[in-house]
Parts: sequence; structure tokens; C-alpha cells
Amino acid sequence: VALSRPGEAFLDATKAVVGPQGWIADPAEQERYLIDERRLYRGRTAIVLRPRSTEEVACVVGLCHQHRVAIVPQGGNTGLVGGSVPNEAGGEVVLSLARMNRILDVSPLDYAMTVEAGVVLAQVQDAARAVDRLFPLSLAAEGSCTIGGNLSTNAGGVNVLRYGSARDLVLGLEVVLPDGRVWDGLRRLRKDNTGYDLKHLFMGAEGTLGVITRAVLRLFPLPKQVVTGFAGLVSVAAAVDLLSRFQAATGGRVTAFEVLPRFGLDLILRHIAHTADPLTDAHPWYVLFDVSSGEDGAGLTQAVEGVLAGALTGGILRDATLATNEAQARALWRLRESLPEAQKPAGGSIKHDVSVPITRFAELIERAQAAVQRLIPGVRPVPFGHLGDGNVHLNFTQPEGADTSGFLAQWGAVNHVVHDIVHELGGSISAEHGLGRLKREEIVRYKSPLEIELMRSLKATLDPLGIMNPGKVV
Amino acid sequence: VALSRPGEAFLDATKAVVGPQGWIADPAEQERYLIDERRLYRGRTAIVLRPRSTEEVACVVGLCHQHRVAIVPQGGNTGLVGGSVPNEAGGEVVLSLARMNRILDVSPLDYAMTVEAGVVLAQVQDAARAVDRLFPLSLAAEGSCTIGGNLSTNAGGVNVLRYGSARDLVLGLEVVLPDGRVWDGLRRLRKDNTGYDLKHLFMGAEGTLGVITRAVLRLFPLPKQVVTGFAGLVSVAAAVDLLSRFQAATGGRVTAFEVLPRFGLDLILRHIAHTADPLTDAHPWYVLFDVSSGEDGAGLTQAVEGVLAGALTGGILRDATLATNEAQARALWRLRESLPEAQKPAGGSIKHDVSVPITRFAELIERAQAAVQRLIPGVRPVPFGHLGDGNVHLNFTQPEGADTSGFLAQWGAVNHVVHDIVHELGGSISAEHGLGRLKREEIVRYKSPLEIELMRSLKATLDPLGIMNPGKVV
Repeated sequence: VALSRPGEAFLDATKAVVGPQGWIADPAEQERYLIDERRLYRGRTAIVLRPRSTEEVACVVGLCHQHRVAIVPQGGNTGLVGGSVPNEAGGEVVLSLARMNRILDVSPLDYAMTVEAGVVLAQVQDAARAVDRLFPLSLAAEGSCTIGGNLSTNAGGVNVLRYGSARDLVLGLEVVLPDGRVWDGLRRLRKDNTGYDLKHLFMGAEGTLGVITRAVLRLFPLPKQVVTGFAGLVSVAAAVDLLSRFQAATGGRVTAFEVLPRFGLDLILRHIAHTADPLTDAHPWYVLFDVSSGEDGAGLTQAVEGVLAGALTGGILRDATLATNEAQARALWRLRESLPEAQKPAGGSIKHDVSVPITRFAELIERAQAAVQRLIPGVRPVPFGHLGDGNVHLNFTQPEGADTSGFLAQWGAVNHVVHDIVHELGGSISAEHGLGRLKREEIVRYKSPLEIELMRSLKATLDPLGIMNPGKVV
Repeated sequence: VALSRPGEAFLDATKAVVGPQGWIADPAEQERYLIDERRLYRGRTAIVLRPRSTEEVACVVGLCHQHRVAIVPQGGNTGLVGGSVPNEAGGEVVLSLARMNRILDVSPLDYAMTVEAGVVLAQVQDAARAVDRLFPLSLAAEGSCTIGGNLSTNAGGVNVLRYGSARDLVLGLEVVLPDGRVWDGLRRLRKDNTGYDLKHLFMGAEGTLGVITRAVLRLFPLPKQVVTGFAGLVSVAAAVDLLSRFQAATGGRVTAFEVLPRFGLDLILRHIAHTADPLTDAHPWYVLFDVSSGEDGAGLTQAVEGVLAGALTGGILRDATLATNEAQARALWRLRESLPEAQKPAGGSIKHDVSVPITRFAELIERAQAAVQRLIPGVRPVPFGHLGDGNVHLNFTQPEGADTSGFLAQWGAVNHVVHDIVHELGGSISAEHGLGRLKREEIVRYKSPLEIELMRSLKATLDPLGIMNPGKVV
């Protein structure tokens, strides 16, 4: 089916749907909707539409369907694979959910919250906390990303280890389908076995099968205490071992387990103000961890200290410190969170978002570092991230003094080498960021033709005109 | 597309694929494959095929595809909605996965296990326990149901509250598609955001979209202690309150929370040998609960006792007892597990498997009991089950001395009344048992036409010939 550029009649009709405050045609005002977070893509559009309700979204999508106009749904526009911006041709309209930002219902007894797609993630977290509940999804962009985008991309973050990815935190969804009809799957049920599970189809589809407009989210008991610690280790294998000991000793109450190398900590200490090394000596690897409990009492800290003591004796740990108050815990987390920022002054960084079974984690890092060193001697690896999920942001900073643009020109070649190793180890080339536009071509190299065919069949079934976020995912 | 009955050429070809031990044509030997657990349906077939490998399944399904012969996949044949038996016409072949019963890999460090579809659930549980891990799926049929059937039906059971339904316990799947091709989605990853999540499509589809042949299952730390208790309460609302207090006090460590009424306990004490009332006095409602911890120490028991003391003082609890050893815990669980058996001597029972948000749970039971009493004066309600999930088996035993067949003739009318109330309360008419053949027509009354249409579209896309378990689900 051939798509059309938005014509006058279409534009007038959509403007009438969303009202005078609901659209942006001025290119300067549009800019923040057109450039992706990583500034890899700069698109154009005739109009940015900002509907305020499901009904308005349905009308807009219905008009797009009728006029064969392509739609790019957008939440906080914080995605890292270019999935939320239009292409350069200007024929796609941007559908921003940002004005659908109401929390509709919070039910602590049902451990559930109903929200519109445009609610900022941090506001969801706050609303849960206000009723003594936890919404565990947590990631760097939480102050500006929206829950609709989180669900559409099946966002990950630091608490997946204990609570799962975004898709695991959903009881029900409302979705505007590519023909403008509204699927009301806004259930608040823990169990519902009445046929195919449609909600899982739309989560992780990155807006290519429909527009998520509302969701019922799962809440959890708010932990009464969190023990945050920072440990220095001799190897990644030791970090994997430490996690295993923690899980065994606490019955799986580790809620975050992040790894970073000494070079990463060096960058942080050098480039980020008001930071200090939490440990006396330097160590090759570090782990930042949270262990949480729903109970008061000293038992949790004792369990954590017991694990650390055993690991120290067993030779897998070199040193560790536990935060003794909230401010210390925040300071430890600030180290980890400032790592992406700290990499910037060191020059260009070629990034990856990969996962493997945790038993292959150490092998992945070792092999990938060696392979990229062979390709670019002097390259400085900064592999960091969610060890607990087998997910690492296997980033490489340019060799000292190298030409940045020359280094970044090897992005594709480096990805190729790293992703081939990931694939050999049974891993994923996009653990949490999605495919978007960035990895849409590359995934064909790693997925079976049958799986690609199945994905395309589903796309053709739900969006036969191909108007939903074309050129993304599949 | 018109389906064909299996002809001689087809039968010869399939027999050659599975070998002499791999098929059953004798009607007497076939019988256990043809009658469902509840004896609602008795089907016929030319052949029961029992392949031993994914390759044999793929060949058999490929032959069915080529010859337009319908297939009924079957695991342990313990389903409660007639989803696993062929119809009466005799044109469908039964594909039993029972001989694919190998555990292929257990990786405690990855918290993962790879199994063939025909492994019995109890064997999966045992294999996990042998490496100090928990596979939490647990249900009455666990000694004979198979993991493939559990995943195909998205089975529930007693631990959903803490660990989720069967679909939440899966990392990867292998599926033979309706044309005989094999989708290898056997990943062992915690995070993989590379496109549409195909595995969720096949789970809960009850064999209508393909045949699950292998799976990678998620394992959990094995709890170090479980506190099992039995409480007498004045109302269902009080039971909901008690659960909320437990969750708050233990940070969500309640792993089972089952409700039953006094009449249910009466039936158990009367009809099941070697049972005794755990409490001194009679109470209108009872709760059986497990609270689990991954840590040693007295903290858990103290927390549970604290909640019970507070609930007693607050007037929501009348009495309670905690098991002080494994034998006592088993005896308490035996009460709950024997309830379905205990109902039988009391005559006919009209059954439901429904769920609502937990805040509507008490209202559901009250309204449904009143409505069915109006329809059948003297009917004896036995609502029991998974209160923690908002899921209740809202069963009704016939009035004392009534004619059983006359009572059972009202099955449809009673379902209608109960399901209408469930629907009004935002609930599901099949919380954990699925649709199968039993509820395939009825679901059309409660799901939106759009959702039915979406389900049919998915079915037509994946199984255009309609050979996979026809007449089930959709």
C-alpha cells in the first residue's frame, strides 16, 4: 500500500480533532519532537499532534488510516534507537502522547494503578510511593520518559533482576489500533485465561502495531529497607559469583546488581564533580548493589554482611562498603548513574546494549574486549550495567588522543564484531533498548528468517496499510 | 479451507515417522487420550501419535498440513475445559507429547532449566529442588500434567500470587508451527528486546497456534522456610484485609492464600479420611496460607504471628493456627486439596473458575451466592480457591436430596448468572482453566467483538488452514 503525505484536508481535520493547543506546525517548536535522544536522526514533519484523550487519539489515527498517512507515536522521546522520531522525508506525522498525563486511579489494595500513556515515569513511581506501594521500573530517563513509551519499548533498567521488564509490570492495556478502533484491554486482573494474550503483542512493539493510550500497572509492597553497597572485585567472574551468593543468602532479594570497570570509575572521579572513590584501594571491577526487604530489623544488613565476609574470605571480594544512610546510598548510585556522562570528555564512545545468559557474562566481556582491541588497538572498554540480568552496555571509548570522527566511523564494524560474539553465546543484540530504526536492518543478520517472517506476518495482520511507525522494528 | 479425514497414505506416512512404538490405533488403548478429565467430552480418532522428538513432531505436523488433517495436541490430558481431546467425528488426530519427557539442561547459576514438553510438572519441580532452586508452578494435577500443557494453557495454581502464572515462568520456547516449521525461540535470556514477543502468543493459546515442544523455564531461589497457617474468619472481606496485612508486614512474601467456606470444611471432615478441624470452634470462612522466606531465623514466624495478633485484636480474625512442622503443614494443605473430592459425595456440583480485582472479591461472592440461591433455592455454595489472585472456584453443590441430573441440567443457566456478575465487576470467566471447547462459545458474550476479531485474525495468520486444535478457544 502506498502511503500519502499529509494534505490540507487531512491537516485541517486533525487540527479540528485536537484543538488549537493540540498541534504544532512551526519547525522551531517542533524541533524537540524531531531529534532523537542520541542525535542520530533528525526528522521532519508537517505536524506534531498532541491529543488529550483516547477519543482524540482514535480520531487522529482513524484519519491517518483513511488518508494513508504514516504515524510516529512518541512519549518522552528518550529512546536510544531512533524509534520515536519521524524520518527525513517529512511525510510522517508525530503523535505525541505527552498531554495524556493523568493518573486515573490508584488502588493500593488491588496493587494496581491506572494511568494515561503520557504520565512521566517518575510521577508513576511517586504516586505508588504515596500509597505505600512500589512501582519498580526505574531507569536513567525516568524524569522525562513516559509510561506509554516504557511499555511500548518494554523498558528495562536497574530493577529487572527482581521485578522484571516493563511488560511484566502490566495488568491491562488500552490500545488504539492502526485503523482507529480502540481495544479496551484495561483489565485489573491477576489471572485471565480467556484466549490469546493481546497485551503482550503491543508491548515491545515500539508503536508499530498500535498506540498504547492507557494501562493498568502492577504495584508491589514498598520495601521497608534497602541495603546499598559498593564492592571491589578482581574479575567479572567474581562478580557473578558474588551475585549468586547474595541470591542464595537472601532468597532472591537483590533488586539491583550493577557492574563497572576501574576505567569507568576513573572517568567518573575525573569528570564528575563531588565524587569520591568509596574504597581505599583501586580494584579492577566494581559492583553496586541494592538488597531490599519488606521487613524492619537488622536481619537484612546481617545477611548482606555475612555474604561479604564469606566472599572476602573466599577470595572473590577485595573490599566493600555499605551505605549507612540515605545520603551515602544516593552518592553510590550517583557514581553509577553519571557514568554515561563521564564518558563524554574522554571522546567518542561506541555503544552496545547486549545480553547473554549470566553464565556466559564473563566470557562475553573478555572475548568482546579482545576482539575490539584487535580491531582498534588502544581502544578503552567501559563495559557497565545490569550484570544481574546478563545485560551489559559494552561501550568502547576511543583510544587516547585518537580522532573522534575516525573512531566513530568504525561504529558499524565494532557492532558487527561484538554482536557476532553475543550471538554465538546465545545472547541478544538489544537487551533493553529495542530495535527502533537503529537495529532494524541488523537484526535480520541474527534472527532466523522464520522469526522475521512471523514478525512481518503479525505486522501485516494488525497494520495492513503499514502506517504505524514505518521503518522501525520490522 | 476444508479439512480432510486422515486417509491411508497419511496414516502410513505418520506411522513411519513415529515408528512402531509411536502410535496407537486400537480404540481401547486410545481411550485415555479421548476422554477429558471432567468426562464432559468423549472423542474419536483414527490415530494417537506419540512422537519422541521435535523433528518427529515437525514431520507429523507437516504431514497434517499437507493432507489438511486436524491435530489435537495433548500433554497430560488433565485440562478442565475439554481443550485436549478430539471431537466426536473422528477426523482429528491426537498428538501426544508424553514421550518427549527429557529434562535437557539445568543451570542453577542461570536460574534456568530446559525441558521437553512432555515432562511431568512434578518432575520439573523435583529437578529444580535438586539444585537448590524452586520452580514455583504448583497445581492439583502436578503429578500427571505436563509442562507443555501447562504452558499452552498458561496454568495457574496456588503460587501465582507471588510468582505469576505459567507464562511468567518462561524465558524461551520452541514451537512447531502449523505448517511443520520449527520456531526456535529457546533463549535463556532475562532481557531481549529484539521485536515482537512471539513466545507470549503461543502460551495460553491452548495448542491452536502451534505445538510447544521445548521450553526454557525460569527458576527461583528455594525458600529456606515456609510458614503455613490456617485461620478462621467472619467474612470474605476480613480475609482480604488479612492478606493485605500479611503483604505489608512481609514485603509481599505470601506465596499462597486460599479461601474456603465452613460448608467446604464440613464436607472435607465428613468425607475425607484422617482429617480433623484445625481449630476448636466453627467459623464462617477459612484461609490457608503460606508465607515464605529465603532466610533462616525466627523473623518470619514472628512477623506472621504479629499480623495474626493484630488481626485478632482488630476483630478481623477469630482464630488461627500455625503448622509447627512439615507434617502439620502437609495436613493443612491436604484439607484444601481434598475439597474437590469432598464435594462429590454431596451430589452434583456446578463449577466456575472466575476472577475479579481483589477489591471486588467479597462483593462477587455475596452477589453470586444470592443470585444462584434465587435461581435454585437450597443450593449450597462452596466458593474456594486463590483469593490472593482474586480467583475463586465459585462452585455450587446441589440442594440436599435434590435430583442430580435435574440440578446439573441448570449448569448453563447458573454459569450465565454468575458470569454476568463477574463481567459487571470487571472480571474474567476463565481465570486459570482456559477456554478450550467448554467456554469457546460463551466467551463471545463477554469479550468485545473487536477482541474476538483480533483473536481470529491472529489465528488465521498463524494457522490459515485451521488445522491446529479446531473448535477450541476461537
